[in-house]
Amino acid sequence: MIEFNKYFKVEINEENNRLMMNAFGLLIHEKEKGVSGYYNLPCDSLNLLKEAKDYMINEDGVYQNAKYIVVIGIGGSSLGTKAINSMLKHKYKNIKEMIFLENPDPVSLSCNLEKVKKENSIFVIVSKSGGTVETISNFKMILNRYQFDLTSKDNKRIIIVTDEGSSLCKFADAYKIKTFTIPSNVGGRFSVLSAVGVIPLSLAGYDVQDILKGADSFIKSFFDAKEEHIILKALFQVQNYKKYPINVLFSYADFLEDFTKWFIQLWAESLGKIDKNDDNVGLTPTAHIGAVDQHSFLQLIMQGVKDKTVTFIKIKDFENKLTIPNMSLKYLEKTDFANGVLFNELINAECDATKESLITKNIPVDLIEIDKINEENIGQLIAYFELLTSCAGALFGINTYNQPGVELGKKILIKKFEKKN
Amino acid sequence: MIEFNKYFKVEINEENNRLMMNAFGLLIHEKEKGVSGYYNLPCDSLNLLKEAKDYMINEDGVYQNAKYIVVIGIGGSSLGTKAINSMLKHKYKNIKEMIFLENPDPVSLSCNLEKVKKENSIFVIVSKSGGTVETISNFKMILNRYQFDLTSKDNKRIIIVTDEGSSLCKFADAYKIKTFTIPSNVGGRFSVLSAVGVIPLSLAGYDVQDILKGADSFIKSFFDAKEEHIILKALFQVQNYKKYPINVLFSYADFLEDFTKWFIQLWAESLGKIDKNDDNVGLTPTAHIGAVDQHSFLQLIMQGVKDKTVTFIKIKDFENKLTIPNMSLKYLEKTDFANGVLFNELINAECDATKESLITKNIPVDLIEIDKINEENIGQLIAYFELLTSCAGALFGINTYNQPGVELGKKILIKKFEKKN
Repeated sequence: MIEFNKYFKVEINEENNRLMMNAFGLLIHEKEKGVSGYYNLPCDSLNLLKEAKDYMINEDGVYQNAKYIVVIGIGGSSLGTKAINSMLKHKYKNIKEMIFLENPDPVSLSCNLEKVKKENSIFVIVSKSGGTVETISNFKMILNRYQFDLTSKDNKRIIIVTDEGSSLCKFADAYKIKTFTIPSNVGGRFSVLSAVGVIPLSLAGYDVQDILKGADSFIKSFFDAKEEHIILKALFQVQNYKKYPINVLFSYADFLEDFTKWFIQLWAESLGKIDKNDDNVGLTPTAHIGAVDQHSFLQLIMQGVKDKTVTFIKIKDFENKLTIPNMSLKYLEKTDFANGVLFNELINAECDATKESLITKNIPVDLIEIDKINEENIGQLIAYFELLTSCAGALFGINTYNQPGVELGKKILIKKFEKKN
Repeated sequence: MIEFNKYFKVEINEENNRLMMNAFGLLIHEKEKGVSGYYNLPCDSLNLLKEAKDYMINEDGVYQNAKYIVVIGIGGSSLGTKAINSMLKHKYKNIKEMIFLENPDPVSLSCNLEKVKKENSIFVIVSKSGGTVETISNFKMILNRYQFDLTSKDNKRIIIVTDEGSSLCKFADAYKIKTFTIPSNVGGRFSVLSAVGVIPLSLAGYDVQDILKGADSFIKSFFDAKEEHIILKALFQVQNYKKYPINVLFSYADFLEDFTKWFIQLWAESLGKIDKNDDNVGLTPTAHIGAVDQHSFLQLIMQGVKDKTVTFIKIKDFENKLTIPNMSLKYLEKTDFANGVLFNELINAECDATKESLITKNIPVDLIEIDKINEENIGQLIAYFELLTSCAGALFGINTYNQPGVELGKKILIKKFEKKN
């Protein structure tokens, strides 16, 4: 269960009601007309689970003997999967370890591959377009490093996730490599609940069905008009984007850090756009981890320019009983107020105290309170931020689902290499 | 060697010259009057190296048999040490592994301690004030978990880094625990080159002397008026803080991620202040890793609100020859432009291409080009950002070195627990 509380006011007047109804209507339209396919993923992806299970059972020994699931992807092809893995892995025993090859950084690539051998790993190549230079280069490096023979049973260790008909899909067909496809109307940053996330997470051993279930029921609840708070928050953020151009996500748990990176892509890439009036609009996400960043970023929020909204994420029950010992150390008695308390309680009290201190400064604050980390709640959390992003995009009047601004860099990159050759 | 290049213009007129001279003068004053002691750390900390070496030789077996250096600290007491460890560890063999206990998060604490035993570890407790509740609580947890007897030789496994005369210092004296002190005029976020970083990094086995050397020669060069580019950049950022409230640090190497977190604390906590006119001023830092975040945050920089300056960090030579194989895959020939190229070259070409694409949009960009990652360059990089921060603070006319905004949350926290008891 997740509770959503906001500590700022949005005026409910005719104009705002109209804007909210329009945004809601637009999302219904997007869903029904398939403008974006992510709304239906929690249902549609159920089929993938069976397909993944068949692969896991059939490929005699290849899957069973693997210790590592190596995911080769970047951006929307890895961030969501990584986020879920980071949130859940402490709750599972006997999970296959997930290794992510993302950046074309020779040092981290070398380091990440230290434990990986051909015989102990499954390699999942994820690229929507099939032509991402970082991903294909990393894939080639793997093929070369482990001397893959693609005409042999080596290719049972490779799984490809891509758009139907993409160049990578054609490559996979040519070598009879197991392929899972992404619906063409699901963009990278909205794709975690498609094969992009579902396949590698299932292979690792996670209960993906419950993640889908959590997302599904929340999306249904939204379209049943039961989650008005989402449109209300989006309206506040969009109407005030000049006053509050920065949206801080302050999460009180270390294992949420990768989730905040997923959020940053979703929010930044969806909303940073040129609108119909040819204006540059958008909202800048920034993510911090509490209580650590109370010792870093908090001073700026409290006393710097008042240009930020702050969303807290708090986990009520970490399901971990680690306790601060009831121990008084000579001269250090000042900190005894936390004696005998669960660490769980301390970190959450810090969240509450920081939240309250921001409210005294009239900083717009809201709180997402998760009862505990489990698959269903993760599904709901993902759906929440996706819906919030779609609402904000609708209110900005932009195309939430494209990213035309990144093409120029890609063109310049290719030219640099053409010159060299 | 590090080169600094900027791709934006600062008008050199009488007024700007005066502002720059004033800021330079203020930093000279701060150094000479000891307003902040960080300027002298690279020299002053040399003594610590000998003291650390004595400890390492003398404590028969305790140090030699340790595999882990467990650093217990938060914020300025850990971020810099962690940053240096992350940048250097791939270059060293036979280093002791550093483990950081920062957040009072029960899940990450439990996970980080999996390999740690009393017999295989040295515990370094770092707290400037000595009264940081997270740090002391983590310390108590360690004392309890490993059944430390502080009146026995167990306490040879503990090292304390704190201000002279602090409560933690008194505690250490009472139990004859080895203590290293931090100069009282060095704030947490400027303290990495004090005992805060020098001691744990030396214990791990890093060549800290060369880090100090790199910082020292750069600070000298600055005060010899040979690094005018720093004040120039600070002037641009401060004069335009309303137009460009967000400063993006875009680093092209995974091992720089922890360094960017150190930067975020330095920049946010130093500059987010109430100025003499009672205005809230400041600049919001946000950090990203290339090429990964080209697939995440770049779209927002390119097409979102033009409220950002962007600083690129590029490492010319990763000293790693991992190569993209000269391999053409059927249907994937489009990415062959990178065939036969070092990953080092690809990631840097991506940095250049992104930089050039931003310049076409008139986004203020500068580039920090490091020839390779070594101790001296790391020292220089740290000194650069510290001096830049001091210059910006001087130009804002604020106190760069305090953090009054975080006190309210601490008070509320204590009240919460008082109510419970």
